[in-house]
Amino acid sequence: MSTLLLLHGPNLNLLGTREPEIYGSESLENINTRLRDTATASGHELLSFQSNHEGALVDRIQQAAGEGVSHILINPAAYTHTSVAIRDALLAVAIPFTEIHLSNPHSREEFRHHSFLSDIAQGVVVGFGPQSYDVALNGILSTLA
Amino acid sequence: MSTLLLLHGPNLNLLGTREPEIYGSESLENINTRLRDTATASGHELLSFQSNHEGALVDRIQQAAGEGVSHILINPAAYTHTSVAIRDALLAVAIPFTEIHLSNPHSREEFRHHSFLSDIAQGVVVGFGPQSYDVALNGILSTLA
Amino acid sequence: MSTLLLLHGPNLNLLGTREPEIYGSESLENINTRLRDTATASGHELLSFQSNHEGALVDRIQQAAGEGVSHILINPAAYTHTSVAIRDALLAVAIPFTEIHLSNPHSREEFRHHSFLSDIAQGVVVGFGPQSYDVALNGILSTLA
Amino acid sequence: MSTLLLLHGPNLNLLGTREPEIYGSESLENINTRLRDTATASGHELLSFQSNHEGALVDRIQQAAGEGVSHILINPAAYTHTSVAIRDALLAVAIPFTEIHLSNPHSREEFRHHSFLSDIAQGVVVGFGPQSYDVALNGILSTLA
Amino acid sequence: MSTLLLLHGPNLNLLGTREPEIYGSESLENINTRLRDTATASGHELLSFQSNHEGALVDRIQQAAGEGVSHILINPAAYTHTSVAIRDALLAVAIPFTEIHLSNPHSREEFRHHSFLSDIAQGVVVGFGPQSYDVALNGILSTLA
Amino acid sequence: MSTLLLLHGPNLNLLGTREPEIYGSESLENINTRLRDTATASGHELLSFQSNHEGALVDRIQQAAGEGVSHILINPAAYTHTSVAIRDALLAVAIPFTEIHLSNPHSREEFRHHSFLSDIAQGVVVGFGPQSYDVALNGILSTLA
Amino acid sequence: MSTLLLLHGPNLNLLGTREPEIYGSESLENINTRLRDTATASGHELLSFQSNHEGALVDRIQQAAGEGVSHILINPAAYTHTSVAIRDALLAVAIPFTEIHLSNPHSREEFRHHSFLSDIAQGVVVGFGPQSYDVALNGILSTLA
Amino acid sequence: MSTLLLLHGPNLNLLGTREPEIYGSESLENINTRLRDTATASGHELLSFQSNHEGALVDRIQQAAGEGVSHILINPAAYTHTSVAIRDALLAVAIPFTEIHLSNPHSREEFRHHSFLSDIAQGVVVGFGPQSYDVALNGILSTLA
Amino acid sequence: MSTLLLLHGPNLNLLGTREPEIYGSESLENINTRLRDTATASGHELLSFQSNHEGALVDRIQQAAGEGVSHILINPAAYTHTSVAIRDALLAVAIPFTEIHLSNPHSREEFRHHSFLSDIAQGVVVGFGPQSYDVALNGILSTLA
Amino acid sequence: MSTLLLLHGPNLNLLGTREPEIYGSESLENINTRLRDTATASGHELLSFQSNHEGALVDRIQQAAGEGVSHILINPAAYTHTSVAIRDALLAVAIPFTEIHLSNPHSREEFRHHSFLSDIAQGVVVGFGPQSYDVALNGILSTLA
Amino acid sequence: MSTLLLLHGPNLNLLGTREPEIYGSESLENINTRLRDTATASGHELLSFQSNHEGALVDRIQQAAGEGVSHILINPAAYTHTSVAIRDALLAVAIPFTEIHLSNPHSREEFRHHSFLSDIAQGVVVGFGPQSYDVALNGILSTLA
Amino acid sequence: MSTLLLLHGPNLNLLGTREPEIYGSESLENINTRLRDTATASGHELLSFQSNHEGALVDRIQQAAGEGVSHILINPAAYTHTSVAIRDALLAVAIPFTEIHLSNPHSREEFRHHSFLSDIAQGVVVGFGPQSYDVALNGILSTLA
Repeated sequence: MSTLLLLHGPNLNLLGTREPEIYGSESLENINTRLRDTATASGHELLSFQSNHEGALVDRIQQAAGEGVSHILINPAAYTHTSVAIRDALLAVAIPFTEIHLSNPHSREEFRHHSFLSDIAQGVVVGFGPQSYDVALNGILSTLA
Repeated sequence: MSTLLLLHGPNLNLLGTREPEIYGSESLENINTRLRDTATASGHELLSFQSNHEGALVDRIQQAAGEGVSHILINPAAYTHTSVAIRDALLAVAIPFTEIHLSNPHSREEFRHHSFLSDIAQGVVVGFGPQSYDVALNGILSTLA
Repeated sequence: MSTLLLLHGPNLNLLGTREPEIYGSESLENINTRLRDTATASGHELLSFQSNHEGALVDRIQQAAGEGVSHILINPAAYTHTSVAIRDALLAVAIPFTEIHLSNPHSREEFRHHSFLSDIAQGVVVGFGPQSYDVALNGILSTLA
Repeated sequence: MSTLLLLHGPNLNLLGTREPEIYGSESLENINTRLRDTATASGHELLSFQSNHEGALVDRIQQAAGEGVSHILINPAAYTHTSVAIRDALLAVAIPFTEIHLSNPHSREEFRHHSFLSDIAQGVVVGFGPQSYDVALNGILSTLA
Repeated sequence: MSTLLLLHGPNLNLLGTREPEIYGSESLENINTRLRDTATASGHELLSFQSNHEGALVDRIQQAAGEGVSHILINPAAYTHTSVAIRDALLAVAIPFTEIHLSNPHSREEFRHHSFLSDIAQGVVVGFGPQSYDVALNGILSTLA
Repeated sequence: MSTLLLLHGPNLNLLGTREPEIYGSESLENINTRLRDTATASGHELLSFQSNHEGALVDRIQQAAGEGVSHILINPAAYTHTSVAIRDALLAVAIPFTEIHLSNPHSREEFRHHSFLSDIAQGVVVGFGPQSYDVALNGILSTLA
Repeated sequence: MSTLLLLHGPNLNLLGTREPEIYGSESLENINTRLRDTATASGHELLSFQSNHEGALVDRIQQAAGEGVSHILINPAAYTHTSVAIRDALLAVAIPFTEIHLSNPHSREEFRHHSFLSDIAQGVVVGFGPQSYDVALNGILSTLA
Repeated sequence: MSTLLLLHGPNLNLLGTREPEIYGSESLENINTRLRDTATASGHELLSFQSNHEGALVDRIQQAAGEGVSHILINPAAYTHTSVAIRDALLAVAIPFTEIHLSNPHSREEFRHHSFLSDIAQGVVVGFGPQSYDVALNGILSTLA
Repeated sequence: MSTLLLLHGPNLNLLGTREPEIYGSESLENINTRLRDTATASGHELLSFQSNHEGALVDRIQQAAGEGVSHILINPAAYTHTSVAIRDALLAVAIPFTEIHLSNPHSREEFRHHSFLSDIAQGVVVGFGPQSYDVALNGILSTLA
Repeated sequence: MSTLLLLHGPNLNLLGTREPEIYGSESLENINTRLRDTATASGHELLSFQSNHEGALVDRIQQAAGEGVSHILINPAAYTHTSVAIRDALLAVAIPFTEIHLSNPHSREEFRHHSFLSDIAQGVVVGFGPQSYDVALNGILSTLA
Repeated sequence: MSTLLLLHGPNLNLLGTREPEIYGSESLENINTRLRDTATASGHELLSFQSNHEGALVDRIQQAAGEGVSHILINPAAYTHTSVAIRDALLAVAIPFTEIHLSNPHSREEFRHHSFLSDIAQGVVVGFGPQSYDVALNGILSTLA
Repeated sequence: MSTLLLLHGPNLNLLGTREPEIYGSESLENINTRLRDTATASGHELLSFQSNHEGALVDRIQQAAGEGVSHILINPAAYTHTSVAIRDALLAVAIPFTEIHLSNPHSREEFRHHSFLSDIAQGVVVGFGPQSYDVALNGILSTLA
């Protein structure tokens, strides 16, 4: 049995209410519940956490090292493009992680084309809307099997 | 009657003490009080908030959506140049906002010439010292009238 | 009593007829009259001038030095992005000035993101539509008081 | 029932033999078979095609329009970074597509960080090795359900 | 019957005398006459204007709006690369226009590779020498037919 | 009597069906026929060829040298921006050529602003829709007369 | 007697556990203690603080102004490359500071080659591993003597 | 006997009054007179002209071709950095010219480091204050001797 | 005994006829024969292949892996600057190769200064005209001896 | 006992006389003596050398390999920004070295922000004035202890 | 009476023999003699020095400080574009200097457009061939008068 | 009979001792001897010279003009990337030369990808280790034959 950690970056707590035509109408809580169920059904545990604070996300990643987390799923949202601190936290704990985006950053503003995480991510899943989380989780579960 | 929110970014709590030859000698509290009085005199409410934490400013912007705030006045200070998270929060709540700077970023270091907010701001007011806040507020009030 | 000079760059003579959804439907004459009234009401004089010719704007700025103009309000329009000659004229007469734009150049083409005037302007006001002129004037008048 | 098209770009015919420590030891035929089975199991049809020729890939994409293909899965390999013709073919047939990479291009040479397809892709899946195809297909199938 | 306006930018008044090996030996007057005759033969009117002054070209474009000009043919010469004011005038009057060059700017100095007009032009004709004007006019006339 | 060669790059075989609001609804065959008729009416021969394969276009250009082709009309489409091989073929056979585009590449994505052919083209015609071919051909015919 | 402040940026709380082959095996507590002892031995006081939160570091720097801190030693870690807020805090309190790095950022990723602090630092010490702190402190103490 | 033309760009009519610590206190008229005297003493004629209008400078250069001017001395001031039209006029009349600056553009703003004239100038003289004109004229006269 | 493969990119089939002042007057067949003779004389086999098709060159490189080719000599011509697919094919078969150019790409257009192959080539030989092939072959043979 | 080599680049022989407000008033001889004493006190030997010649510095570094030098302290001055030869010499002898600057290059001209040595240096010490040498030496000595 | 120093950079010892169509046929010795005579005639002394060694030029500039040299005339030749050491030597001795070029670097290769000296030079004289030295000297003498 | 000159840049005197896994274990003396023998065997003379001093290499190249050297073979090592003076010396003496590198600069640091010599070299040979010298010499000898 593995423990997985699902991390959500800034403004994702608004999911379902914020620009639903882009991000869909499903709430973050729903997503967390659904993924937890999927993980449980495969005999694994899934923890989740959201914060608008870069430092809080760094804290949470560090804590994961002590919890035996074997894989992190992270939608870093805005911090994708600006946070070296989150990159360094992921490097420090050395837990493999998958980067997830609901929409396609490549079709948005120029500054969203660069990610501080992609080159050290094990995998990247982009553009399936809220399904992106499921796509990524299923991919990870299949490697755990 | 409209509710306005006045946001101040990092280090603006030092206003009046920090480099007064650049930023003037008026304290942030004074400015908040004066703007609140101006707004009240026009029959509107003005809330204000300062933080050195990017995440706290994101939190506060999100909260504004539930308070019926119709316009945000924001001096993002250092986060002008580095925060995609604040940009995304403003896009998410979809409240029109005015970007304010006391001094003129264009006459300072190169990295201050780019703003992550200007292209989505309704208006920008720069360079009038502490008066920048009043100039912006009067502009907004005249569109509310 | 101060004398102010209000300058309008190329194509602003079309105001009210040109792309009204962007620039509003008020004519330049109207704006000039309203600002002159505002200035007069505060006991000041306001002169105004528009030209499509870069050289004519340079001539007019130079002339201001002999008229005792204490502040220039300038909407340089297209010359914002291409005129070093207007920059040099403003440096030469050494009259403080405020740069004004009706729309938000930061949300338009890349080449409109650079201004040859902003770094030497005392203030910049952007994005309030025709109100930008009033916002800027009121800001200047408050510093004259 | 939908028809899906699975496209493989240059050098992917060597899969299983080429740099197995990077790309895994599974042959392309195996992958095609497994994905066809997955699609069939969900009541869909999956066609596949590989070529080292940019023009042949363009031809194949054009042909898909006449076959009623509803989604394309494409691992453009080297053409990711150099082919506007494949981009234009995908735009021309207007069939939604998912971009797939076995390894993580962001952790390789600089020129592999830009894709001519990502900004018009519906989704992007990167870095799960040969599993990337399955991850992408499952994501697509879940949206077809 | 349509009215067309043919505009020539700086130094084109020297045509026929200036660097004839590049620009041909035909005078501007000749070209104007020939194009006027072509337009008349098709039942249309063609006006023409040349100036070395950016502002005068802006003035002339603005005037065209009041003359019912339905298409502008413009060889902006040096102002191709430096004039946002002419771009703005063409945007303001919203008259479709064709950009014309006698020689091929792409085979000359680097700074001639960028045009402030091409992206908003309806058509661009380059490199046929003085014939470029005829090629463009015939193209426009065929769309008027 | 001259022999002309009309070349069409990738995806132009879809003309008339692909994004008709951009490229018009006329088929490539129609265009070829009409241009052949125009050439014949002037006493010249016009050959035409389309391919999605860069190499096939290179082959066809080389073959033109043996056919006594005196001028090439080429719409290189996507290969405009990526093919040095076509450039080299045109340089090798040393046949003067005109570059043609239906739409205006300057108003599309950044990467379409650079052409590997323009600087060595005799002429360039852009933006007249399917008429671009006629405009270019008429220009060339007038120089042959 | 002077008061010194030793600041540690994000992920430095993991020192001794994180990538010991790069950062050494000494814990942050050890380093703090050793430096405090060195300072005390010279008759000075040394305070220390670590946080993963950019805003908390800004808060701590501001607080230093009220504590009479005469010099700050700061290892900004990831915030070296992304924080204008910390730069502004240091400028605001106007306390001279030394920038410290354990490893050599110039031999790591490109984005680590730029520091938002170096140009306003009094000194920079890089690459001595945990000894970097001692090297910097001794340098500062010798200037206090 | 040769005829020389001395051209002054925008804002140079203010010479002697404008920023005298940079440009000296001598008026433009004085300079013109002194240089005319120097030229006359060597048996040559020197004409002079100043304008703030780019177009007027182009007109004046074109006129020089008809006056038999054998050398142009030009201080293009602000138009150094923005005028392709003046460059083209100088190329068109093909009169050798010397570029002159009073102060040193290389020690001023970045945008003053590029000149649209230097690469086609016969000579460049920079930084001798009003003496720059004399230095250049003496250099030219020595080549006429 | 080793087997060597000599590959020629696009337009090299024209050798001897195309721009002989740059590329010499020797035909490709001659070169192939001469190099085959040199190889045979040293007891080795040399195969050769030319194509204008990027995909065909990729195919041929892949085929080499099955033929026991121990070294590839490749003059990639235009594909030097645009083909990641050929690079990937060479990486995939992992056969050491030498890059060859007849003329000196560094003295030609800017875009010819970058090669997608040089950094992974074992050796590069440039600028000896048709002799470049011999120079490279002799170098390789001396390492085989 | 270790042998250390202290190298000084161009113009450092002027130390004490050159711009003392930047570089201090201590002579190079003084510094050399003081550091030699410090080294001797720790039981080590310190050699020193200064030259304005890049080649002489390269020669001296090569000679160090034969002298058993275990660490080099180098203030490369101007050659920091332009010398690949010194970099190569340091790589060739493979002696660990510390880069030292008296003032802070990051607060000076742009071209001083890049060093050809920093990424291969073991440590870098910047900005302590003449004390920089002592700070670096003490750091090195503590690692030798 | 002033002492002037005339410095010549690398390859200028070949003057008169090297590419005479660009640099003229006068030898360096001739130039030195002529300038010495001009200086003497004005009651001043002129020393001269040439070297191909960057370090030797630095040495010579340093020596000038002890000789009471009041102005340096320097043609830095190739070192114009690559030597920070010469720049630093000139800054260190703080003797005003004039930069001289025989030909016009702006009309040559891109890398010759940047000078490490121009921004700190008092004056720059370019393009008068060997006369450039005389033009510069006369300019300097007139300021000494 | 021709005279050839073989030049070696900085640090090549260490050949055989320095990083033998990259540069091989053969000494420079060996290489010089072997090449001299090869040249002699073909009836030619080969001189050789190595220096760590840029100026000494310039001096040696200039001297070659007086020795009737018909071809220079140069491995400029570090000066490849930084020396305009050596480029100018080679242009001045106008002796054709071949640029040689032992290792492949394109697979090393970014700054080694640019050469100040390649665009004016007759030939370039890279990557054959010490054999590069032989490969180049044989190429040159075959053109002398």
